Amino acid sequence: MRTTDKRKERGDRARANILHHAIQIASVEGLEGLTFGRVAADAGVAKGNIQVLFGDREALQLATIESGVALYAETVVGPAMAEPTAVERLIALVEGWYTFVEQRTLPGGCLVHALSSEYRTRPGEIRDRVEHHRIGARQRIIDLSNEAVRAGELQAGTDVEQLAFELMSHQASANVAALMGETSQFELARRASGQRIAAARGA
Amino acid sequence: MRTTDKRKERGDRARANILHHAIQIASVEGLEGLTFGRVAADAGVAKGNIQVLFGDREALQLATIESGVALYAETVVGPAMAEPTAVERLIALVEGWYTFVEQRTLPGGCLVHALSSEYRTRPGEIRDRVEHHRIGARQRIIDLSNEAVRAGELQAGTDVEQLAFELMSHQASANVAALMGETSQFELARRASGQRIAAARGA
Repeated sequence: MRTTDKRKERGDRARANILHHAIQIASVEGLEGLTFGRVAADAGVAKGNIQVLFGDREALQLATIESGVALYAETVVGPAMAEPTAVERLIALVEGWYTFVEQRTLPGGCLVHALSSEYRTRPGEIRDRVEHHRIGARQRIIDLSNEAVRAGELQAGTDVEQLAFELMSHQASANVAALMGETSQFELARRASGQRIAAARGA
Repeated sequence: MRTTDKRKERGDRARANILHHAIQIASVEGLEGLTFGRVAADAGVAKGNIQVLFGDREALQLATIESGVALYAETVVGPAMAEPTAVERLIALVEGWYTFVEQRTLPGGCLVHALSSEYRTRPGEIRDRVEHHRIGARQRIIDLSNEAVRAGELQAGTDVEQLAFELMSHQASANVAALMGETSQFELARRASGQRIAAARGA
């Protein structure tokens, strides 16, 4: 292996370690609390290293969002998409989100829901990225629902925009409830989503 | 009027002016951004005055929550409770919340929903106050719904906990959507709540 390859590999590992710590911090404290100093202390690296690897603070914040989304994609979206039918993929996706938050895969729950609230009043590149991922998550539900309608697994005439809104909405509340220790509200969210999909199936 | 009465009146006016600015700031930036310096600059008073009137920063933060809740009570809850039947009070309460946010009565929308998200991972007195008001808002919906069931205005057997959860949940999403400029999502929230109440009425 050439020296530059080794150096790249070392850099990638260092980046991954820093981002691992950054997403834990961001999920609990938000992205505004994410400073080089804070991440350096948690990751056990020098502030200067983080600066070399990421450039400025906003670049670190943006990379943190992508890293959190990648973790979710790997843990929840990937396995859900392996289900055989569209409606099963939809159910696994929704149920997977609740498990992700319940098991504290990230200590602060769902990063995208938390950051949507944190940045709702703060226009800029960070908000645009969060918005991009929120729209992506919604679109995934809409696409699966449309597919399920075409396959006859959801009722013809299902308002898929409305369905996606309600499922995302239950998640937003559940993300707060879980961290507030309101188990009953978290379970109401899960049940509301289950009933909503069941109703769309005509059950 | 005695000198002490005049002094009290002056103090009350100064407090009200400071809190007026504090709730604007908190609704947009959250309570973590609420410092004596920040409020002093906006309210056009000396930092020292704020300290004399409120004591410490946490006392200012807690007073800000109460002030925001009082504004909402005056603008939305009071008028809604004047409606003649329980179901009309419920509908006016829900619709009033959407109007409150849509018209930017506070520039950052609903303070309680925003702070619920900001403090979901931060235990302490502030979170307890936010939680108190969130539970109060939910309980108001539950009480009105129970009353409406008893009056035969909502169907017997309506799961009022589930209904309250869903109505609050639509609000949480709408509060983010409104500030993100996602008008269509805001309208989906409003419609979802309207349909949910209509379904509970058996319409």
